[in-house]
Amino acid sequence: MSATAGTLHHRAINTIRTLAMDAVQAANSGHPGAPMGAAPLAYALWTRFLRHNPADPAWPDRDRFVLSAGHASMLLYALLHLTGYDLPLEELKRFRQWGSRTPGHPERGLTPGVEATTGPLGSGVANAVGMASAERMLAARFNRPGHAVVDHRTWALVSDGDLMEGVAAEAVSLAGALGLGKLTLLYDDNGITIDGGTGLAFAEDVGERFRACGWHVQRIDGHDLDAIDAAIRAALAEEERPSLIAAATEIAHGSPNKAGTAAAHGAALGAEEVRLTKEALGWPVEPAFHVPDDALAEFRAALNEGAARQDDWRERLDAWAREHPDAAAEWRRVTAGELPDGWDAHVPTFTAEETPAMATRQASGKVLNALAAALPELVGGSADLASSTNTYLAGLGDFGRESPDGRNLRFGVREHAMGGVLNGIALHGGLIPFGGTFLVFSDWMRGAMRLGAIMGCRAVCVFTHDSIGVGEDGPTHQPIEHLMALRAIPGLTVIRPADANETAAAWKVALERDGPTALALTRQSAPVIEKAACARAGVARGAYALDGDPARTPDVILIATGSEVALARAAAVRLEERGLAARVVSMPSWELFAAQPRDYRDEVLPPGVAARLVVEAGVSLGWERYAGDRGEIMGIDRFGASAPGAEMMARHGFTAGAVAERAAALVERLRAEGAGNP
Amino acid sequence: MSATAGTLHHRAINTIRTLAMDAVQAANSGHPGAPMGAAPLAYALWTRFLRHNPADPAWPDRDRFVLSAGHASMLLYALLHLTGYDLPLEELKRFRQWGSRTPGHPERGLTPGVEATTGPLGSGVANAVGMASAERMLAARFNRPGHAVVDHRTWALVSDGDLMEGVAAEAVSLAGALGLGKLTLLYDDNGITIDGGTGLAFAEDVGERFRACGWHVQRIDGHDLDAIDAAIRAALAEEERPSLIAAATEIAHGSPNKAGTAAAHGAALGAEEVRLTKEALGWPVEPAFHVPDDALAEFRAALNEGAARQDDWRERLDAWAREHPDAAAEWRRVTAGELPDGWDAHVPTFTAEETPAMATRQASGKVLNALAAALPELVGGSADLASSTNTYLAGLGDFGRESPDGRNLRFGVREHAMGGVLNGIALHGGLIPFGGTFLVFSDWMRGAMRLGAIMGCRAVCVFTHDSIGVGEDGPTHQPIEHLMALRAIPGLTVIRPADANETAAAWKVALERDGPTALALTRQSAPVIEKAACARAGVARGAYALDGDPARTPDVILIATGSEVALARAAAVRLEERGLAARVVSMPSWELFAAQPRDYRDEVLPPGVAARLVVEAGVSLGWERYAGDRGEIMGIDRFGASAPGAEMMARHGFTAGAVAERAAALVERLRAEGAGNP
Repeated sequence: MSATAGTLHHRAINTIRTLAMDAVQAANSGHPGAPMGAAPLAYALWTRFLRHNPADPAWPDRDRFVLSAGHASMLLYALLHLTGYDLPLEELKRFRQWGSRTPGHPERGLTPGVEATTGPLGSGVANAVGMASAERMLAARFNRPGHAVVDHRTWALVSDGDLMEGVAAEAVSLAGALGLGKLTLLYDDNGITIDGGTGLAFAEDVGERFRACGWHVQRIDGHDLDAIDAAIRAALAEEERPSLIAAATEIAHGSPNKAGTAAAHGAALGAEEVRLTKEALGWPVEPAFHVPDDALAEFRAALNEGAARQDDWRERLDAWAREHPDAAAEWRRVTAGELPDGWDAHVPTFTAEETPAMATRQASGKVLNALAAALPELVGGSADLASSTNTYLAGLGDFGRESPDGRNLRFGVREHAMGGVLNGIALHGGLIPFGGTFLVFSDWMRGAMRLGAIMGCRAVCVFTHDSIGVGEDGPTHQPIEHLMALRAIPGLTVIRPADANETAAAWKVALERDGPTALALTRQSAPVIEKAACARAGVARGAYALDGDPARTPDVILIATGSEVALARAAAVRLEERGLAARVVSMPSWELFAAQPRDYRDEVLPPGVAARLVVEAGVSLGWERYAGDRGEIMGIDRFGASAPGAEMMARHGFTAGAVAERAAALVERLRAEGAGNP
Repeated sequence: MSATAGTLHHRAINTIRTLAMDAVQAANSGHPGAPMGAAPLAYALWTRFLRHNPADPAWPDRDRFVLSAGHASMLLYALLHLTGYDLPLEELKRFRQWGSRTPGHPERGLTPGVEATTGPLGSGVANAVGMASAERMLAARFNRPGHAVVDHRTWALVSDGDLMEGVAAEAVSLAGALGLGKLTLLYDDNGITIDGGTGLAFAEDVGERFRACGWHVQRIDGHDLDAIDAAIRAALAEEERPSLIAAATEIAHGSPNKAGTAAAHGAALGAEEVRLTKEALGWPVEPAFHVPDDALAEFRAALNEGAARQDDWRERLDAWAREHPDAAAEWRRVTAGELPDGWDAHVPTFTAEETPAMATRQASGKVLNALAAALPELVGGSADLASSTNTYLAGLGDFGRESPDGRNLRFGVREHAMGGVLNGIALHGGLIPFGGTFLVFSDWMRGAMRLGAIMGCRAVCVFTHDSIGVGEDGPTHQPIEHLMALRAIPGLTVIRPADANETAAAWKVALERDGPTALALTRQSAPVIEKAACARAGVARGAYALDGDPARTPDVILIATGSEVALARAAAVRLEERGLAARVVSMPSWELFAAQPRDYRDEVLPPGVAARLVVEAGVSLGWERYAGDRGEIMGIDRFGASAPGAEMMARHGFTAGAVAERAAALVERLRAEGAGNP
């Protein structure tokens, strides 16, 4: 039953190979080699083991398949088309063209059946770990004796390059620690990367590394269907450990002149080599995109099988729902991604009377814990900074090998994998994940955050220690450029709340969003502002006038975020004493503010008021947008230093006195220039 | 000879412990546990094996010691003080205070003897791999039979947290592939992280993982001096593989109530526990910062030994220099970090006649290769994208196990480790490293780039595929926010050249800088501008007027970078046809431009000209700085898509026609508003 012996298998596998080859050739762009080498692996998995229903890509209990080696996108598009997803052959012919559903790398949301946007190597491994974790958590929560309504597996196809990336190494170690027995990686071990043989830089024994990380490991000939079959069965039988199937394959298998070479990795084979390859495979040279009827029929069996599987599952679901109506209602709600009615009544309000001051990270922890009971779908953790980032859900246990119902995720010191796992959990559905680390380490997980933004994953990053206010830990731990660098990412909403109530409001926004949110929170204490209702409405709009007579045109506007809002307010009092009317604008979120109608924006920041002083303990870059040509920016355009936080703030000019002086001088300058306010 | 038996050892080790404990207590901030647990390891290494000279921290042939577990900074400060570096006890008493030389995490350049700024976990491992690589490269280049003038080792002390980080996993795999036999990691395996036991998330067999990556691995009791001694000797004897010494230690060893607990990780023990610990250790409770004379004398022997070692080395150096004067002169030059006289005559010039157009990545490759012969200190490579990023030095071989003289580094698909290795090579000295990947993957190595910027490492990041012009690879591979996000990093100079000549000029700037530089280069072809001399001077100043009559006040200024400069130039021609005088400003580098005197900046961008149109295929965020309130920005504030590059540009409005239309409309609008130019 080898890939070349049995004629139907042969044709089915070669259909994948030739579709990939033809599409890349038509686009004159793409990666033919990996689809051709991994075709037997993919064929075996997709026709014999993968439990999916091409007619319903959203079936909640489907197996998840992640093509971590996203450059092999034509492998996935071929499988999706052949097994009957809504992806006509015409789309494969438009591979990598404007408006097609077959982009260069798989994109979730664009192509039915694509579970994750991949391409940046390694990230899919972390996504798969997140999906497998989500499955286990939901199974623990919803399954009942005799009823398994959540019971699926997660598969990922990975390349050498995936396994060189640190994010994958982190995710592999984490998966081993968690004992994710329903996760299987199929490793397309073709020994070739873009630059040449993997021996150039990848001399490790991958299997032994995985074993050291607690994985079940098998090594097989990736062109031997019997071996693939047996290995997948063994992986299915292994329930305690995640499985790696390292399958030795030949890149561009079938190509007489390019098989086994780096030349086949990332460029079209060329018309002549395509012809030679088809001849070598016993394939008709014309027409391109040829799909033999019997091969198609074999793949399309997935439609009937999928429908039957889903029907069977629906029966089980119904039986379960009859016995456990509350659980079923809850399951339907979380699967739809809906929040429960009245959930936001649980968002706490803080009063300045009871709590004069509180670090916003601490407020965040209180909000999270207050919401945890109302929102059982809320799960998360931190990269070994649970208490520092206040992300621990008290009393709700750690998610682990023996405790699938735990809601706290222990990511270890693995920020990048954390980001990828959060995405994977969000992609799986049924849960809303959050993850915490210091803001400075957002750099470590930017790759994952960007992918989360592209995919629109509802995940909340809790970034604490958000300025030089961190203090003694020094420049390596003090964010400077991070707020602005995060604001630069399209699709990501960044919120830097000023106090406990803005923090509560920020969580409300984050949980109601469709996409990812990053919260920037203080390590140090921040006064609780007495205007809780104002904060709730204001945060949702991104910025609002906090102090100052709304009916009066202010002499100066102080625009501040986070812990600097308190400074601005104190400065406003001093300015008032000097006869200057200052409006304090708290601007927790650029993105939310930019989404407001112009009227509202002009109301908060009247265009006629040129005297604007921005106060934020981060880079000034970007703030010209709101300061305007004549305004000024109090920022920090150099790295920090090691000293107590309050001293750091003072030495960098972040005191109420300094803000007031700067604002007064600004007003005076503009008046002298005759360019002040109308 | 255990840590507690021999009284002198005992006292020496406990001196480290109590200094760490007292300093953290005095600051009421810091990490006492790791220094206390790792004190025997550090004591053995620093008094018996480390070849350094505390009187000359810059001795080129010293062993390098990297405290990757930077939070254990007091361990290093104690060692530096005790062995006789210029770090008086008074500085230890000012641990973590403003202006001290004992910041929260070690900072290169601030404290004598600190080889690398560390704290963000894992990064020190990559730095150490870079240093060990640099040693091997320089040894291959300068040593001669009978003369070993470059012959030192690299040591790093690492924690559990270091080894959970992906960047460390990448670096470990790379070091194994390279067979860096003179690199030794001492693993302070105390089983405790901030959140608790490492079992929470770190269940792997670390030793087996390292073995799988080709390392020599030993496991020892980290409190047993004999065992430490034997293990270090075995590591020294192993020449083919890097060594890991996994030393089981107890965090906060000696503390009656906190030893072995997470409570001792990141907070002062408390005055009472400090007292109890001192009593348990048989230590005087008062005064704090007590250093027994005999312990000090043992550590201070490093001064005599170091001087003798350096004298011996100097004799060897002199003998070598007599026999090989050319090599010696060259060695002195590169060790001083100086470029050879007249080196820049090798920077090529491109003429529009000979080369009408060329991708800037290709130009970069030509410049690199042209300079490689003149600058033997130039070494580098890419994260498996040698040909895509044009970073291969033709004919100069791959650096590897059998080829220490190769100048091309094969990093594998490991961007973050690449960044850390580049820093390590730069920190070592004698070499100027560069590393290439796609601009979008700068996200993957931001952590390392930030640390390089903090340290001022002369390293060049070659980021190609710098816009949606990438084309078919789609949104995962098309940078949008990256240019601005990199500009936000203090200390990093970002250069996005417009053509081949600006690229050449950018390399000149990068090689002459003290700190890191990021080059953003096109995948696609860019016309060669006929003004090569202009480009050279202009790039050095960050921005310059490329087209337009300098004596005439322009109707509109088109500010562009990189591939968009050609669009702006073509648009200017169209505007001219419409009777509008456009000045085209090429602005390859914000940082270089900001460093110019105001006169020059005002000359390039006359303050009176409000009609300014910025054209850059990236986020608009930040560009208000140069567009001004009345100007406009043509940017891209969403993710890209998969389609051919030229089509992508056109569909996003990046055509000469669209730029001209927008500019003309802008002039018209401002004229209508009466707010145009004077």
